[in-house]
This record gives sequence, structure tokens and C-alpha cells, in this order.
Amino acid sequence: MDFPEIEFANCLENAQKAMAEIGLDALLLTTEADVRYFSGFRTLFWESPTRPWFLVVPRRGKPIAVIPEIGAALMRSTWLDDVRTWSSPAALDDGVSLLADALQPYAHVGLPMGRETSLRMPLADFQDLRERLRHHEIVDATALVRALRMVKSEREVATIREICAIASNAFAQASRLFQTGQPLSDAFRAFKIELLSRGAEDVPYLVGGARQGGYADVISPPSQTLLQAGDVLMLDTGATLRGYFCDFDRNFAFGHASSDVKSAHNILWRATEAGLATARPGATAAAVFHAMSAVIGQGCGDVGRYGHGLGMQLTEPPSLIGWDETVLQEGMVITLEPSMTLSQGRMLVHEEKIVIRDGAPELLSQRTPSELPVLIA
Amino acid sequence: MDFPEIEFANCLENAQKAMAEIGLDALLLTTEADVRYFSGFRTLFWESPTRPWFLVVPRRGKPIAVIPEIGAALMRSTWLDDVRTWSSPAALDDGVSLLADALQPYAHVGLPMGRETSLRMPLADFQDLRERLRHHEIVDATALVRALRMVKSEREVATIREICAIASNAFAQASRLFQTGQPLSDAFRAFKIELLSRGAEDVPYLVGGARQGGYADVISPPSQTLLQAGDVLMLDTGATLRGYFCDFDRNFAFGHASSDVKSAHNILWRATEAGLATARPGATAAAVFHAMSAVIGQGCGDVGRYGHGLGMQLTEPPSLIGWDETVLQEGMVITLEPSMTLSQGRMLVHEEKIVIRDGAPELLSQRTPSELPVLIA
Repeated sequence: MDFPEIEFANCLENAQKAMAEIGLDALLLTTEADVRYFSGFRTLFWESPTRPWFLVVPRRGKPIAVIPEIGAALMRSTWLDDVRTWSSPAALDDGVSLLADALQPYAHVGLPMGRETSLRMPLADFQDLRERLRHHEIVDATALVRALRMVKSEREVATIREICAIASNAFAQASRLFQTGQPLSDAFRAFKIELLSRGAEDVPYLVGGARQGGYADVISPPSQTLLQAGDVLMLDTGATLRGYFCDFDRNFAFGHASSDVKSAHNILWRATEAGLATARPGATAAAVFHAMSAVIGQGCGDVGRYGHGLGMQLTEPPSLIGWDETVLQEGMVITLEPSMTLSQGRMLVHEEKIVIRDGAPELLSQRTPSELPVLIA
Repeated sequence: MDFPEIEFANCLENAQKAMAEIGLDALLLTTEADVRYFSGFRTLFWESPTRPWFLVVPRRGKPIAVIPEIGAALMRSTWLDDVRTWSSPAALDDGVSLLADALQPYAHVGLPMGRETSLRMPLADFQDLRERLRHHEIVDATALVRALRMVKSEREVATIREICAIASNAFAQASRLFQTGQPLSDAFRAFKIELLSRGAEDVPYLVGGARQGGYADVISPPSQTLLQAGDVLMLDTGATLRGYFCDFDRNFAFGHASSDVKSAHNILWRATEAGLATARPGATAAAVFHAMSAVIGQGCGDVGRYGHGLGMQLTEPPSLIGWDETVLQEGMVITLEPSMTLSQGRMLVHEEKIVIRDGAPELLSQRTPSELPVLIA
């Protein structure tokens, strides 16, 4: 168990209070993060899409796991008492009847169906379940689960702080890890190894780019192109520790940088300062967006927003965007991720990670310098 | 692009033939592997659950991408011509109307809804889409997509062969990487770094265990427990290269192994031999299962099967299990993964990776020795 039982008991208590308020008898959860949030069940086995996994959170009592036998030993090592299993993959009924039985006593079931959610079970099986429970009401529980998971406990924050420190220390090795003449893919590999060596458990996410005076997009895998003087290299990492993500990036110039790039770097740094000055309990996600946007003075282009929540997932609600009226609360962990479009299809992205506190936010990533760092070319 | 255009043109041609046979006008695809299979679009950005991504494969012409703007540059670098984007995340309509427009001309739409599939978009958005296309027929396309993706092209096989060789060579370093007195989590870390150093791009999956005379389960993250003499250490890795997985494991004893463990290792080795002797074009997945099962002489316990397909996903159809009547064909890549339950809740699992050929299968992993390897304690 990554956390003591009290952690999960608190999550459950908060969930059951919220369920009572809106008259839900149970939650049905199917995704890795939602199941882990209420059970502590952590495994990379979710990488296999073959088997569905279910957690039923009833209005009273501990969650009920309805899972393939292959997960029984691990699930029984969590704080749960009621672990129901079937031999999966099954020829005809891959857990559906067992799940229907578990949900039978609960007439009003909440299921995350909204923004940023998905149903991790075959759609045909869900239709079968719906038919078996045709007198049940199944309603959208996105808002409820989202509200709970957005506010991190101090144990969650401590884990995220630890993985952020590992990534900050890895980025501090840039001048040793990254050189001109090195293929970009080798730079990525060297950085992943550095993260692991410093204690990251996994590096599920590392994207970036390197081009003269900026980069063209921020989601591509690395090319074999050799780094050269005048390149701006960006790496954006989502490394994990005990199943919690860091997510922030760093930019480096090789040898020299144009005044355009230096200026953009400084604008983005100041936009982040504006975000830091605005991110307070009671402010909205939109307000933080507008504060950063005012410094940048252009739309947020292809990226679509200037930051987001995160935790057990690389990106979580809220979005720092003009329409997201989520009110920030103490304990929310978010990124500030301003970006700028430069000329000729180039862009620059900054990213820092913070936790909302009573007063100024706590920086979880080590603040990037206001001047673009230049590595020897 | 990881493959030349002809690769994707072939996939498309095969899909369109199959679609014509069953009267489908288009496929709707939403998951990373399905989208990549027809487009070549590869990015770790799928790690972020925030944005949905859609690919429409019409009965004639190239696939149509309906995706968030953040992916436009990368998608336009693939072989696709028609890339439709929206600014995501969007307040009210996160791609649904754009997707509905793209599907409008196609009255009979196939969507994977069956075993091992899931719908990667919010369920509420799918219900909205269903309402917008209420005169369309949306049917299950699992069998069609499964049949195409199960048979790998020689380019896919070559990529998988390469990542398997990297993992085989990493396992060959066991005596240098793994020692008694080492925390199990450090052994995992050392192995991940070895895989990356040898050219693996990512290690999305590494599970295993180490206990006296076997291990208790095969999906747990590593503990901090120190390796000791008498332990049997198992590591099962899914490392990737250009988005294709290897998946096989290796067992090592420290210092000595009991006769029970040695005997079980040899039984599993012989079960794999029986699998290798049976895995031929025309044989069923069930026949390979039964051949292995006859050697093992007990049920397949919690694991539920003795192997599976794989490729762009860690596990893919078919399952080597008594009820899976999938007929093996040349080019299918599968694992042979026999397991045994030992006494006192311990187990042993073997895994090799093969491609079905005309005649004996080609081994993609380097065959494990018939005697359990013993490392110095």
C-alpha cells in the first residue's frame, strides 16, 4: 500500500457525503485512476486492454472490487474486504453478470460519462449490463468524482513534490546530458535514464522538440536529427513515483538564441509570474488563464489552454482556459503552461507545477530562470 | 513516419475489402492503436485523457482524421490528406459535431464494441453523437478490426523482432544487473535502464516478483524487499520500439533452487516446446493451449490463459485458452506463456514470443534454457 488506510477512508467518506447529497446509491468506476483512488490498487497491468476491472463504491461501507482473478492477490493486499473475482478472459460473460450482481442493490448508480472520462469496458458489455439493470438509473457522476480527485491530500502532494524534485534535479544535469551533434532521440534516452537513476519509477511521458529558433509541435516522438547550434531544445516530462505524475518542461538554447526567442522566453516567464500571483483559493481557473494571457497578448494557439490539473493522470481537470470557471481550492495541484506562437510555425512552451495554498502557491517544480538557459554548442 | 505509405495503403485496402463484404460504409476508431494502425500517427500524448481523437475509415479513399488542433502538425506529417481539427478542450462541443459531420455520408458505421476494446471518448459525447446520427446504423466492428490487426506485416514483425532482441540481450546481463542484497525495486530500475541503453524507446510495462521458491503474483509493482539466496526472481517486460511491444519474461534463482522449482521450470519449458510444435498455420489458439496444458497437467489458475497476441498493444487477440477457436495464420505474433501453481500460493510463469510461419514458428525472443538459470547468491 502506497498510503495508510486512513487516506482511502477519507476519500470514501468524502465520496459518500457527496453521493448522499445527490441521492446516489453507488458509483461504478472502470479506469485505472478512479479504481486506484478508492482502493490503492496500483499495477502496470492496466497496460493490457484484455481484461475489464470494476470498482463499486456503495453509499455505505467499503468499495467492492469486481475483478479478474489475476488481480486477486494484489487487490486483497489493499484495504478492501470484498473482492469478487472471475476467471478472465471468459468465453461469454467477462465479468458482466458478477458486476450486475454487485450493483443489484443500488437503484441509483453514478458513472463518469463526461469531459475527460472514458468507460474502460467493451461498449457491448456495458449495453448488456444496462439491460440487466434496466430498472436502475445510471447517471453521470463526472462532477462528483472530479471534485473529489481535484483536491489532493497532503500525502498525494508529498508524492508529487518528490517526483517533481527528481525531475528538477534531472533537468539540472542538462549541460552534461544534451550536446550538439547528439541525435534528439539520444537526448531523450539520456534524460529518461537520468530520471530513473534519480528515483523515478517510470517515464510514461516524454515529448519535446528541437529546431532553430523554437520547435514546430509539442507532441511528436523524437527524431534522429542531430542537435545543432541555434536549436532550442524543449523536453516535457511526465515521470512517475508510486503512480503519481510530475509534468513540466524546460527549454535550452545551444550556443546562442535569437532576440525573438529570448524575448518570447521572458514573456512566458512573466506570464507564469502572473499565473503564480493569481493562483489563490477562490480564484477561478479562467482568472489564472486571463492573467497569463494578458502578459502574452495572443491566443493560446494549438495547445488550447495555459495549464491543467494533474495527479494520478498526466492531465486532469481543471483546464486553465477562458471558459473553465472551476474555483481553485487549497490542495489543488496544477501546471502553469503558457505558450507562444513565434514566426514560421515555431512555438515556445513553458511549464511549472504548483499546489494551491492559503496565500501564494507552493512551487513543486524548481522555477525556470527568467533568461533562456544557453548550453555550450 | 515509422513505415512507408505502402504499409498503410495495404492496411486500408484490406479493411475496405472486409468492409465491402459486410456492407459497412465507414469505421469509427477512437483508440491509440486503432488510430495508429490506419494513420501512422504515433505520440505519447495519448497519456493525457483530456482530449478525444477520432479516425473515420471510409469505404473508399483515405482515412479522415478528426482531431484536436494540438495534433494537427503531427497528423499532417502522416500519409493522410484530410485532417479536420478543432480547438480542444472546448467548452461545449469537444469534437462531436465535427465528427458527426465527417460520419454524415456513411449510413452504416462500424465501431469496435466487443472483447478487448473500449471507446475512448466520453460516454455522454457518444450518446450525443448517436443522437445526431440517429438514422445511421452503428454496428460492432470488433471482428473486422481484430482480423486485420492480428496478422502482422513483415515491417511490423521486423520492428517486434528488433525490440525482442534488445530485451533478450538485456536479460543476458542478469548476472551483472541482479544481486542478492539488492532491493527488488532497484533490480527493476537497473533492468529498465539496461533496456533503454540498448535501444528500447520506452518501458511501459515491467512487472515481476521474487520470493523463496516462486512468487505470489505477477502484476504487482516491485517491493523494497532485498533479494536473497533461494529467491526465484521473475521479470516480465513490455518494452517498446517505434510503438511496438515485446512481451516475455525470464526466471532466475539465486544461489540454489529447490527440486520443486527446478522441476516446474522444466515442465514449463517442455510445455513451451509443445506449444512451439503445435503453433502452425491452420491450428487453433485452443489447440496450442491444449498442447501446453497436456504437459502441465493442471488448470491455468489465476492467469487465465497460456499466451496471447500482441503488437501495438501489450496484449492483443487471440487468447491461448480452451475456448478461443481463432485459426492461426502466417504473420500472427503471439506469446507462449505457460504457468504453474506451486505449493503455498507460489507460482512460476514462462513466456516466449513467436511469429507464425509456414512450418515451425520463428522465435522472436531468445529461447530460455531448459534448466532454471542460477545466479551467484
